[in-house]
Amino acid sequence: MKKIILIPDSFKGTMSSGEICGIMKTRILEHYPGCEVIAIPVADGGEGSVDCFLEALGGETVTLSVNNPFFEKIDSFYGLIHGGETAVIEMAAAAGLPLVEDRRDPLLATTYGVGELMLAAAKSGAKKIIVGLGGSATNDAGCGAAAAAGVRFYDSKGESFIPAGGTLHNVERIDVSGLADELKSVEIITMCDIDNPMYGPTGAAHIFGPQKGATPEMVEELDAGVKAFARVIERDLGQRLDDIPGSGAAGAMGAGMIAFFGARLQMGIESVLDTVNFDEKLTGTNIVLTGEGKIDGQSLRGKVVIGVSRRAKKAGVPVVAVVGDIGDNVEAAYGEGVSYIASINRVAVPFPQAKTRAKGDLALTVDNLMRFLKTLGI
Amino acid sequence: MKKIILIPDSFKGTMSSGEICGIMKTRILEHYPGCEVIAIPVADGGEGSVDCFLEALGGETVTLSVNNPFFEKIDSFYGLIHGGETAVIEMAAAAGLPLVEDRRDPLLATTYGVGELMLAAAKSGAKKIIVGLGGSATNDAGCGAAAAAGVRFYDSKGESFIPAGGTLHNVERIDVSGLADELKSVEIITMCDIDNPMYGPTGAAHIFGPQKGATPEMVEELDAGVKAFARVIERDLGQRLDDIPGSGAAGAMGAGMIAFFGARLQMGIESVLDTVNFDEKLTGTNIVLTGEGKIDGQSLRGKVVIGVSRRAKKAGVPVVAVVGDIGDNVEAAYGEGVSYIASINRVAVPFPQAKTRAKGDLALTVDNLMRFLKTLGI
Repeated sequence: MKKIILIPDSFKGTMSSGEICGIMKTRILEHYPGCEVIAIPVADGGEGSVDCFLEALGGETVTLSVNNPFFEKIDSFYGLIHGGETAVIEMAAAAGLPLVEDRRDPLLATTYGVGELMLAAAKSGAKKIIVGLGGSATNDAGCGAAAAAGVRFYDSKGESFIPAGGTLHNVERIDVSGLADELKSVEIITMCDIDNPMYGPTGAAHIFGPQKGATPEMVEELDAGVKAFARVIERDLGQRLDDIPGSGAAGAMGAGMIAFFGARLQMGIESVLDTVNFDEKLTGTNIVLTGEGKIDGQSLRGKVVIGVSRRAKKAGVPVVAVVGDIGDNVEAAYGEGVSYIASINRVAVPFPQAKTRAKGDLALTVDNLMRFLKTLGI
Repeated sequence: MKKIILIPDSFKGTMSSGEICGIMKTRILEHYPGCEVIAIPVADGGEGSVDCFLEALGGETVTLSVNNPFFEKIDSFYGLIHGGETAVIEMAAAAGLPLVEDRRDPLLATTYGVGELMLAAAKSGAKKIIVGLGGSATNDAGCGAAAAAGVRFYDSKGESFIPAGGTLHNVERIDVSGLADELKSVEIITMCDIDNPMYGPTGAAHIFGPQKGATPEMVEELDAGVKAFARVIERDLGQRLDDIPGSGAAGAMGAGMIAFFGARLQMGIESVLDTVNFDEKLTGTNIVLTGEGKIDGQSLRGKVVIGVSRRAKKAGVPVVAVVGDIGDNVEAAYGEGVSYIASINRVAVPFPQAKTRAKGDLALTVDNLMRFLKTLGI
C-alpha cells in the first residue's frame, strides 16, 4: 500500500468526518508506516464545512465583522483555498441557528451577513466562491444576501427595503443592476444536499420552518411569502425556480443563489470532489476508504459513498465503504464502484449501545482491514 | 480465486457448520463459478459429527443394533471413511441424551452401546477409530463401553458386574485382560473440547450432572463414585487420570477412553484437521474461510478458528474468520494466523433479532467479501 485516500461522510450524531479521518489515519499508519494517507473530511455545507476544506487542502481563515440574522454585528469568517483563488463560505457562519439561540424568528431573520461574506470574498480576489447551505435560521429566499451585494427590492410604494421571511410578500420589484461588479465575474457554487422546492407541502417553510421557530401560522405566512416572491422573480428576472430541486434549501436561499448570483446548485460531495481535485488525487491510489452512518438503497442519490465510488470506479481504484449499519438493497452500490462494505458493528447490540462504542469499533474495523490487505500483499 | 476451503464451526443455536458451508459455497460460486470449493463442516464430537466427516470426505454409514443407555436395543450407526480404514463414532448415537428423552437417570445410564459400536467398527477392519464425546446421558466413566469390549469389573464379593454412575463406587477390581483383540491393535482418538477433570467442583458430575437429570444429592453420589473409581484405576491399571484435562468429559468417559482403550484425547478441530488431511488440502488454496458464533480472547484455546488458522499460517494461506460477534481481546487471533475477521452483524440490533437474520446476513457477508477479493484481483 503506497497511497490511500480517506473521504468519509460523518456518522451523523456519532462522529464527524474529521474525527473519522483521524481514527482511520492513525490505524493505517500503524500497519503501513510509509503509506501516503490523504485525508479529506467531507463538508456537507453546514457548520464546519470551511474547516473541512481547510483540513483537506490547507489555506487560511479570513475573519471579519458582518451582520447576524438580526442585523447585529458579529465576528464571522470565510476560508481561502487554492492560494486564494477559491473562497469557501458556510452560510451558518452568518445566518446560522446557533447564532440566534433562543430568539428564533424566521419572519425577521436575514441572510444579509452571508452576502457580506460573499462580497468580501470576491473583493479579496477569489475567482470562485463555494457557499454551503445548511443550518440556517432564515426564510428570506436569500434577499438579505442579495441586498448586501447591491440588489434592490421595492415595495408597492416604490420604497426600497430589505425583505425578510415576513415581508417577502411585499416585494413588488427587483432590481439587480446594482449587484457589485466583483461578484459578477466570480463563479459561484452552492452546496446543497436537499431536493425541496421553494414552497408548498415539501417546501422550505413547511419542512424546515418549525425547526427555525415558526408556529403553524407562521409557516403558512412564510410559505405564502415565498410563493408570491417566486412570481416576482419570474416576472422581473425571467427565471422560474419554483420546483427546481434544492431551490427551497436554507429558507429558499437555494432559489436566491440562482436568481441573484447566478449560482449553480451542486451536491455537496460533488463540490468537495471537484474542489480537492479528487480525480487527480486518485492517480497511484491503492484504495479509497469512504463511509457513512448507514448505507442503503437511498445512498444511491448523491450521497458521499456513491459520489466517491463513481469517480474511483472510473479510475479503477477499489473503494471500501466503512459504515455503521448496512441497510437493505445495497446491491446497486457495488455496481456504482463500491468494492466492499465494512460495517463497524462487531457485536449484536442495539444502536444506543453501538453508538457509545463507535470510535473504538471504527478503529478496530480499520485495523482489521489493514491487516487483511497486508496479508493479501496490497 | 482457484481454490477455497470452507471450515467453519457452527454458530451454536443459530446455524450448523454444514448449513454455513452450504450458504458460503453458493455465494462463492456466484462470483467464482470455476473455483474449487472444499467444504469441511466441523464435527465437534457431539450429535451430527459422523455426518460432518462423511460430508467432508465421503464414505459410508454402517447401521447396527446396540444397547441404549438403559440396555434396550436400538438402531445406531457409525461412519467409515478413508475407504474403511477409519471409523467415526459419535457416542451420542448410543448414549445420547435424546435417546432417553424424559427418563434421564445418570445413576443407571450406561455407555455399553458405545463399546458395541467400537467393537463393531474394529471388527469391520478399521485401523483407526475416532470417538466423539458429547451430548451423553451417562456418568459411568466409560465402564459400560469397556464391558462391551471385554473388560471385567468386580465388586467386593468378587462378582462381575457392569458399573453405571450409581454403582461405580462398588468396583473393587478391574481386569482388562479380556479386551477384544480387535481393539488392541486399533488407534483410538477421542474428540473432546472440554477441560474438566474427573470429579470435584469442576468435574463431570457437578458441571454436567444436572443437565443429565441429576438432583443435587445424585450429583454428590456420582461425584463420590467417580472419585473412588479413580483410585481403583490408579491401583489396578497404574494410571492417575484424575486431573487430566478432559478426563471428566461425557460423564468421565474421557478417563475411561484412556484407561481401557488407550485412547488419546484430542481437541475436536485437531481430529478433524488430521482426518481430512487439511495440511495437504491447503496446497494451492487461495483463501480459507473459517468462523464461529463469537470470536474472543477465549477462542485462542483450541477452538476451531485458531486451530485452522495455525495450520493455514504455516502454509502461508490467508484466513478469513466469518463470525457472529467479535468480542474483546481478539488481537492475539491475528498473531495465530487470522488475516481478517468479518462479522455478519450488518445493523445495530440486539442478538435475538440478529439471530433471525443470521442466514441472510451470512450470505450477504460472503457475497461482500467475494466482490472485494475479485476487485483486488484474487
